[in-house]
Formats: sequence, structure tokens, C-alpha cells
Amino acid sequence: MQTLMQQVYEQNMELFRRGLVVYTWGNVSAIDRERGLVVIKPSGVPYETMCAQDMVVVDLEGKTVSGSLRPSSDLPTHLQLYRAFDQIGGVVHTHSRYATAWAQAGMPIPAFGTTHADYFHGPVPVTRPMTPEEIAGAYEKETGTVIAQAFEGINPIHVPGVLVRNHGPFAWGESCAQAVHNAVVLEELAAMAYLTRAINPLAQPAPEAIQNKHFERKHGKNAYYGQK
Amino acid sequence: MQTLMQQVYEQNMELFRRGLVVYTWGNVSAIDRERGLVVIKPSGVPYETMCAQDMVVVDLEGKTVSGSLRPSSDLPTHLQLYRAFDQIGGVVHTHSRYATAWAQAGMPIPAFGTTHADYFHGPVPVTRPMTPEEIAGAYEKETGTVIAQAFEGINPIHVPGVLVRNHGPFAWGESCAQAVHNAVVLEELAAMAYLTRAINPLAQPAPEAIQNKHFERKHGKNAYYGQK
Amino acid sequence: MQTLMQQVYEQNMELFRRGLVVYTWGNVSAIDRERGLVVIKPSGVPYETMCAQDMVVVDLEGKTVSGSLRPSSDLPTHLQLYRAFDQIGGVVHTHSRYATAWAQAGMPIPAFGTTHADYFHGPVPVTRPMTPEEIAGAYEKETGTVIAQAFEGINPIHVPGVLVRNHGPFAWGESCAQAVHNAVVLEELAAMAYLTRAINPLAQPAPEAIQNKHFERKHGKNAYYGQK
Amino acid sequence: MQTLMQQVYEQNMELFRRGLVVYTWGNVSAIDRERGLVVIKPSGVPYETMCAQDMVVVDLEGKTVSGSLRPSSDLPTHLQLYRAFDQIGGVVHTHSRYATAWAQAGMPIPAFGTTHADYFHGPVPVTRPMTPEEIAGAYEKETGTVIAQAFEGINPIHVPGVLVRNHGPFAWGESCAQAVHNAVVLEELAAMAYLTRAINPLAQPAPEAIQNKHFERKHGKNAYYGQK
Repeated sequence: MQTLMQQVYEQNMELFRRGLVVYTWGNVSAIDRERGLVVIKPSGVPYETMCAQDMVVVDLEGKTVSGSLRPSSDLPTHLQLYRAFDQIGGVVHTHSRYATAWAQAGMPIPAFGTTHADYFHGPVPVTRPMTPEEIAGAYEKETGTVIAQAFEGINPIHVPGVLVRNHGPFAWGESCAQAVHNAVVLEELAAMAYLTRAINPLAQPAPEAIQNKHFERKHGKNAYYGQK
Repeated sequence: MQTLMQQVYEQNMELFRRGLVVYTWGNVSAIDRERGLVVIKPSGVPYETMCAQDMVVVDLEGKTVSGSLRPSSDLPTHLQLYRAFDQIGGVVHTHSRYATAWAQAGMPIPAFGTTHADYFHGPVPVTRPMTPEEIAGAYEKETGTVIAQAFEGINPIHVPGVLVRNHGPFAWGESCAQAVHNAVVLEELAAMAYLTRAINPLAQPAPEAIQNKHFERKHGKNAYYGQK
Repeated sequence: MQTLMQQVYEQNMELFRRGLVVYTWGNVSAIDRERGLVVIKPSGVPYETMCAQDMVVVDLEGKTVSGSLRPSSDLPTHLQLYRAFDQIGGVVHTHSRYATAWAQAGMPIPAFGTTHADYFHGPVPVTRPMTPEEIAGAYEKETGTVIAQAFEGINPIHVPGVLVRNHGPFAWGESCAQAVHNAVVLEELAAMAYLTRAINPLAQPAPEAIQNKHFERKHGKNAYYGQK
Repeated sequence: MQTLMQQVYEQNMELFRRGLVVYTWGNVSAIDRERGLVVIKPSGVPYETMCAQDMVVVDLEGKTVSGSLRPSSDLPTHLQLYRAFDQIGGVVHTHSRYATAWAQAGMPIPAFGTTHADYFHGPVPVTRPMTPEEIAGAYEKETGTVIAQAFEGINPIHVPGVLVRNHGPFAWGESCAQAVHNAVVLEELAAMAYLTRAINPLAQPAPEAIQNKHFERKHGKNAYYGQK
């Protein structure tokens, strides 16, 4: 698990360096599906002094297997996402400024252009309002459940992020590095989409043909973006 | 008092490093309630050359007890806040960009999401307009008085900051470090709330159940955010 | 070609340093018209580890002449621009935030002031929507074609950039250094124009006399800006 | 003149460090009224490589007295301001983003709050449109003339800056250091005012009593801000 702890640590630091977190907001986790273990940032520990050994290892029920610190309070959301989306290997949660504003506005981020379509095939969904029972109950777990519900009929690998209403973004990927990458992209898309609508309140999503073309040239069978 | 002077100095510098001040705008103070003394930044001294020994120690009437420099011109506001809110140990004033814009707009910052609710239990209030007499009189002291009035029925520990109309934010906390932390958060909340309304002019505050949940999980009796 | 490879490398890095690119987004190329060769950034290679020897040399049909990496997937657009605009020596493509927002909004950037007129003689055009056939076909080449169409009647040296609808900006110049310079300016103009309309939704372009004066004093026969 | 050249050089660099200029945009000058000489930045020279010896010394007619480089093309505007406002010792011109947006919007910056009133006693004026004759003629000198016209009935020491319509801000002060300080403040005020109106389109200027109080406590006879 040392390798995964190191990776999770490094990606938490990457999140910090990329300017997506203020103070201790935000957390990154990764899963080892063979062993049934998840590594996650400890709760409320400052990035400036955190080290790889501070990462917390838990099982799929959230029980700490190794580490002396409490795991992130958002752990049950991460676990729920690993259960619901079996292709993902890493999860990120932030309160990054622009994506959080869309979440607070309660609006999905439209796929206005190719920057969006290069990573997200369709709008970034926003979750439904949670019920008082869900909030009073296993709140963080239920947060994962409403995310999973928002992806009925959507492939979470093709839309690697979501806005939790009144809260903020979660992003994911095949690894925790990919998840952080997607969280950074999501923040940039959120900023661009805000500006797009400010410039033209009637702006429409990019035509589907454009969206499909860009998503496919990067992620499709015949992808030709990047190196082999 | 050397320890408190050092703390107040460091927190003034933290305010500067966090990008909340331009030139000499902004000031941090802390109170030693046992001795009845307050330590505050000197007026108009640049952060780049300021040192801990420049901090000014005053009594609760604002009379200088030690230090050769004039205290911040906002000192009477700080003193009034220490009188009105007996649980606070530190006060911060800034002209940070987004919070000042809300103050100039004369509008409270709605609690749009969990980032807000993690720190402020309810909207960030804006003070009433000051009368010509208050402005012509003990202006800085009266500024503290209108802040105190805005908190009738509000626990200042649960809402650790305010917008002074046409002026800018004040924030506070149990220590000057906590006060600076809250000032940084307030600026981020102000930015997010501006964006939220720009994206959706009809955006509503987060449901009360969500607000309560987040405030309590961080500050309530059974708080479970962070480490023990 | 070593010199040109070095220049193209340096200008790609300049684009990165100026904050116009996130991850591997964006690319710079230059042409050697005598030899009929183009040097361009490789596709999807991170700026942090890229070196001059990674630059790819292609002929005017896009066939790799030297270099082991794949050229940027936007290469056919660059080639089309070199064919259409015979005075240009360098081309830049970015997804810079503000210019991309205007492209997504589907609106040309009005020439609101002298900052704009110092570099762009008239509004920055936006391309027409591409047809499903163009998107399904030689997409990147057709992107170059719709750009060329947008410049019928416009001198591309006087208007050294464009917004590709639903995509983002391309800029160019007599050299790749000039192209990067124009891309940086275009991003700044896009930001200023967004703010101008936010402040005054009825803002009008600068009077033509002002636009002509500024463009001429910098680029006209009797230019007097800068050193001889 | 070596001292003044050094000061003008340093303040041009300060403008650059404060993020108010892109490339070679912007210039700072200072006047020695006893000798009737003005020192100004050379035209189009990059800040990164500029040195104090590059500063150009001119007489009040704009004739170069010392220096091998061409003076800033905006020199005639500076000279006109020194003629019109006999109390000022330094002038700054920038294309800083927010102030330029207000200039392009053709709207004065309202005095929305105390940050503004601490430096500018009343709104920041915007110049009238220039006539085609003024633009075709001694354009840069006429730019200075329309600025002076905008200050009929306004004390330029109390309102140390202006927006030239469709162009950008000029600021000034008793020294070139003060002028740069005012240019930085003006940019911040422009940003705050933009946000204020975005948050509340009906926002009104601060009450006059507040504006007077803040301006006087910093600049009046009985000023008590800062150190003695």
C-alpha cells in the first residue's frame, strides 16, 4: 500500500498546487480493488505539513486499516462512488470556486465547446436536492447515492465529474492522477461556461457532431490525440 | 505581551500573504482579556518592512500602553467589537475585493452552499446606513456600534464576520489566527456567491437542513470534521 | 531546421509561461517557406518535460520529415492557414479562458478601445458553424478552411487572430514569436471586452477614427510607436 | 537628473511588478519643475531588459535633452497634464484591465465606498469623445487637453486619475511614486466597482458624508490616518 499512499499523497498535493483548494478543503482517494482497500487524505490536515504517511487506509466499509488519523469526513461519499462506478480508481472532491458556484446555482454545466467535449461527453450533471431524511441520516453516504442516481443512463467514464447541489464538485478517473486532472479541467470548464453565458445569455451547447468528434478523437476507438 | 505582539504581527503578515490586502489596507488585532490590553497593527505601515515590535499595545479605552507608532485608525471599531462580543479574541478588517463589493452593494451574502455553512451559520449581515451624526462624531467607534446592532439575535461566534455598508468586511474569532482564517473564508464565500448569482439570478440559499448539518458537523457538540 | 525548432520550442514555452495553456492544451508552429517545411509542437506532450528536439518537422502535406513524435492534432488547421495567408510565418492555437468564452458565445470581439486597435484593425471575427460533413470529414483541415472564409475581405496581417466557433482562438504573425504575442494580446482583449459589456451592455466600438489612428501609429507607413 | 531618472525607472518597474502592464503597455514620467525637464520611459522597450539609463529626458516642448531612445509616444499627453495641473510631479498611463474596461464602457467610476473615498474625492471622470480633428491632429496632446477639460471644477489632487474614453486610465500624484500608487488603487477601485454593480445593478454611491469623512481623515487638515 506504500505506493498507493504515495500516489494519493502526491495527488492531494497536486490539487493544492493547482489552486483548487483553500486551507484544508478538498480530498483525493484511490482504491485498490484487488485488496478491497481505499487510501484517502486525513480530515482537516493542512497541505503544507501533510506527508505520505498521514494518508489513511480503510476497507470498503470505511473502517480504518492503517493510519492514526481520522479519514476525510467525505470518505463515505468516496466509498459509495467506488461501489457505484466499478471502472473508477480515484475520486476527488473540491470546493473549487467556479464549479462550486455552478453547484450552488443548481445548474448543470452545458457543453458549450470543444474544451468541454474533449473530456466530458455531455453536460456536467447536478444532483437532485437531498431529502431532510437523507441529510439527517448517513449524509455523506447519501451524497454518494444521489450522485450515482444522477448517472443513471450516463457512463461515468465519459462524464467524469458531477456537481453536488449546494455543495461542490466531485470528479473521478481510472486513477487518482486522472481524477485530479479531471477536477482541474472541470474547474476550467466551469469558469469558461460562466463567461460564455455572461457574454451571450442565449449561448447554446456546441452541436452534437462537434461534441462527438472531439470526445471520440481523444477517447474513442480511433483516438488520434496524443502519443501512442 | 511579547507573545501576543508576535502573534498579531504574524497574522497581519498572513493576511498580506493570502492576498487580502493592497498596500497598507487591512489590520489585525488581538485582546488579552485578563490584562485588559489589545495589540493592533500600527496605522499606514507597509507590510513589507513591518516587524513584531511595531505592534501597538493599547488599553480598552484605546490609550497607547506601549509602542511608538500610532495604532490603526480603525482601533475604536476593534475595541467596540471586543466590548460587544465577549467570546472573541481577535478581529480583522480588510478591503478584500469581493467582500468589499458586497458591502458596497449593500447586500448580505446569502448562504448559498456548504462552503458557507461550514463557517457561517446564516447569511453574512450588512450593517444599516450610518447617520450623519454617527459619521461626524466618533465615526470609527460608531462603526463598531452598528456592527453590534446587526448582531442582535445572532451569535457572533456562529456568524464570525460582517459587511460594513459602503466600507468592507470585518471578521473575528476566538484568536487572531481564527479571525484571519475567517476573513480569508469570507472573501472566498463572497466570490462564490457573486458567481452563483451571476450564473443563476434566481439562486436560493441552501436548504436549512443542509446549512445546519454542515455547521454542526464542524462546530456542533458532535462535530466530526478534522482531528480530535 | 535546428534554429526554427528552437524558436518553436521557445514560443511554445512562452505560451505556457504566459498562462494561456492548461495541461497540454495549445500549440505553436512556424513555417520555413523556402524549404516548404513546418515545425510544430508534438501532440499531448506536457510543457514541463518537453524539449526542443521533441518538435516535429512536417512538409506542407503534413507528412513527418523529422521527429519521432506525432505532431499536434491541429496540424492540418495550421497548414491550411499557411496556405491561405501567405504573409504569415507562425500560428498559435490555445484554449485561453476569455477568448474561448467569446468563441463559445459565438460572438466576434468588438473593437471597444485602443488596446484592441493597437493590434487588431476591426473586430476579431468568429467562424461560421461547420457542417456535419466538414466535422465528419477532414475536420482539422476544414477548421482552417472556415477560418480562411472568415477573412474574405480582411487582411490577416491587420487582424492577426480569429475565434473558431464553439472551439477557441487561433492567432498568427510574421513569426511564431509574433503569433504568440498576438495570442496573449487577444486573450487580454477578450477579457477587457467581456468586462466592458458587463459594465455597459450598450457599449459601442471605438469610433473608426480612433481605431484607425491607433492601428496606423503602430503599424502604418508613418508608424511612430516604439524604437526605429 | 540621475536621481529622477532612477526614480522614474523604479516606478516603471513597480508598475510592471504590480501586474498593471502587459508587454510594453504603460509608462511613467516625472517632472523637475525648476529645471523645466521631464523624465519618461522610452517607447516600446520591454520592462525585462530596461535600465535606468534608458529613461529619456525631454524639455517641456517634448524635445529630447538626453537619451538615445525615443520617448513614450504618450509623452505629449504627459506634458499637457504637467501644464494643466501645476501641483503634480508624476504621471502614469496604463491599460490595466478593469480601469480600461470602464474607459471602454464610457462610464465614470462611481464612488461606491470608502476604499474609493480614501483616495478619490468623487467619481473617476471619463473624458468626452474626441473630435475627428483632434484625432487627426496632435492626437496625444489633445488627449491631454480633453483630460484637463474633464477637470474643470475638480481639483486634480483630490481626484488623482481619469479614464480616457475608449482608451484607458491616466493617474498622477505629487511624485511619480504617488502616481503609480494611485494607478494601482484606481485599478482596484475599478474592479470593485464592476463587482458592486454586478451584485446590485441599483447600487448607489456612498453617502457624501461617508465620502467626505474618509477623504478628510486621510488627506484633510486634521488627517489622522498613518504616522506623523
